[in-house]
Amino acid sequence: MRTLYWENNTLFLLDQTKLPLSVEYISCRDYRQVASAIRTMQVRGAPAIGAAAAYGVVLGALAYEGQDTERLVAHIRRVAQSLAETRPTAVNLFWALDRMLKKLSQLQTSPSGDIIRGLLAEAHGIYQEDLAMNRRIGEFGNSLVPDKATILTHCNAGALATTGYGTALGVIRAAHEAGKDIRVYADETRPLLQGARLTAWELMQDGIPVTLITDSMAGYLMQQGKIDLVVVGADRITANGDVANKIGTYSLAVLCRHHRVPFYVAAPVSTIDVSLPCGAQIPIEERDLEEVCRVGNQRVAPEGVPVYNPAFDVTPHYLVTALITDRGVIRPPFDQGLAEALKGNI
Amino acid sequence: MRTLYWENNTLFLLDQTKLPLSVEYISCRDYRQVASAIRTMQVRGAPAIGAAAAYGVVLGALAYEGQDTERLVAHIRRVAQSLAETRPTAVNLFWALDRMLKKLSQLQTSPSGDIIRGLLAEAHGIYQEDLAMNRRIGEFGNSLVPDKATILTHCNAGALATTGYGTALGVIRAAHEAGKDIRVYADETRPLLQGARLTAWELMQDGIPVTLITDSMAGYLMQQGKIDLVVVGADRITANGDVANKIGTYSLAVLCRHHRVPFYVAAPVSTIDVSLPCGAQIPIEERDLEEVCRVGNQRVAPEGVPVYNPAFDVTPHYLVTALITDRGVIRPPFDQGLAEALKGNI
Repeated sequence: MRTLYWENNTLFLLDQTKLPLSVEYISCRDYRQVASAIRTMQVRGAPAIGAAAAYGVVLGALAYEGQDTERLVAHIRRVAQSLAETRPTAVNLFWALDRMLKKLSQLQTSPSGDIIRGLLAEAHGIYQEDLAMNRRIGEFGNSLVPDKATILTHCNAGALATTGYGTALGVIRAAHEAGKDIRVYADETRPLLQGARLTAWELMQDGIPVTLITDSMAGYLMQQGKIDLVVVGADRITANGDVANKIGTYSLAVLCRHHRVPFYVAAPVSTIDVSLPCGAQIPIEERDLEEVCRVGNQRVAPEGVPVYNPAFDVTPHYLVTALITDRGVIRPPFDQGLAEALKGNI
Repeated sequence: MRTLYWENNTLFLLDQTKLPLSVEYISCRDYRQVASAIRTMQVRGAPAIGAAAAYGVVLGALAYEGQDTERLVAHIRRVAQSLAETRPTAVNLFWALDRMLKKLSQLQTSPSGDIIRGLLAEAHGIYQEDLAMNRRIGEFGNSLVPDKATILTHCNAGALATTGYGTALGVIRAAHEAGKDIRVYADETRPLLQGARLTAWELMQDGIPVTLITDSMAGYLMQQGKIDLVVVGADRITANGDVANKIGTYSLAVLCRHHRVPFYVAAPVSTIDVSLPCGAQIPIEERDLEEVCRVGNQRVAPEGVPVYNPAFDVTPHYLVTALITDRGVIRPPFDQGLAEALKGNI
């Protein structure tokens, strides 16, 4: 099962809104399809969005029919801008588009064919590097997981959120592959149920024992001493170690503090945004109220009820036990550790 | 809108599994219908279950066709036993059935007609007293609510959970009726969505401003300083002040502690169970996994996924700011306050 892949100048995206009831791929030959898939969360998860957007830039370039290189470059910049406007919180989207635009700048005086080939190679690089980073996150994270650990996770930071293997689920996979007797509780993660639909499905496919709970049960499990650690992914990590992630992550971190349960965040360096000193500056996406008022086709709330639907929250660094990155495990003080990680010094 | 009412020797129950999409009453002439309605949560909420079960005893008595008073009494005891086996956690069910059985003991040598009339009067008494208790809970609770307060509540402890007015929502109603500019956030309360389906609907009907959120958003709202107090109902309060209530209540209480938000529990004295010294002894109902795997007819989780579905959790007394009862507001130490309240000394 691949989250996304490139074949015959087409980007194939596993439609995550259809899982687990059906496994269907969307074939994108137009960058606007990619933008729409990101917006509607047919593809989701910070690293997966980044890779999809990178290929979206290539699709935009391929569709340009003129011969003028200068106009092609301007067209590609507009494509990237339009892809950047799909979702505001996960920084990997902007990180991937920045990489594509840097490559474009290097190639802007080259012939059109070279520009397109160069951009495709860059997108492939982003894809492959993400996979490799997740493997390293898994290895580093595994060192933090005791044998027979029961691990709670929220949302889906798995293979489906990345180009493969996963970040938080990468840590779980690595511990499982190392022969540790791991059990997982998956928060269902309302409103869009990524935990129920994606995380439970992914782990069942890999034969990793998983039990599904509603989001409100996590505290009760911790109270009973059933959770040894929590590991989640991240959509953006600021210079001080504050973490934006799926709504509900902050509540989990507070519950971990109260119960003295370690709270780990697993993410590649592409998630780190040192341009923001702290989490208060991260734009938090608010999504359509229908996500809360409906589950699939089933209406669950009165017509006309006001709804608040932030898609993310920010967990302050002081509630984070450690950040698990592809360059190593970072412990507080995070500002120093993150700066060193970005320089490649850890 | 009435949660339940008695007319022509029939108990009418508003079918709460159908709300808010349709308003339908179930007419029960057989106590087994009442038992089934309690089990399937067509009627739910600790005080409403108690009143429904009391009328269920009357239906059982009415259905008895023999003339032998001794056998009638034995039959009624079996009916009460069968109603007691529907749900284990809320103590109001057992409290109401105990009252009915005490009345039965007083009347057991009377003619059948007197027994039945006496039991019906007792059920009416339970019904009317619950309504009156909720009004008093509202009055006492109102004293704790500042003007312009934004209040968070969980599940439904409203008119629909009682014979009318509500406990936690009774406090909110009383504050609203007192002219305070109250705003409410309602947790949707997975898995059965009593917040979305019932609380939001009830408050909208009364014109009290309500905003619906998913359960995982409560912490983020508190972090932003948007919540002035939390008020919830209770299914059982033990002698030391520990509170069993809908799953997710405990997490809210921990979040309140972290954010220094007052956490109030509103319940009538019928919810107090001094026979249990602490919450660890409360039996916690685990319900069918399909409640988590489905929303209405919509499947939301992979086939065969293991699920943990406790319907309640226990909030330890040290996280409770005050208990709002029909006999007054009780502050710590709760063991003394609860004992005094039961004696009628506050």
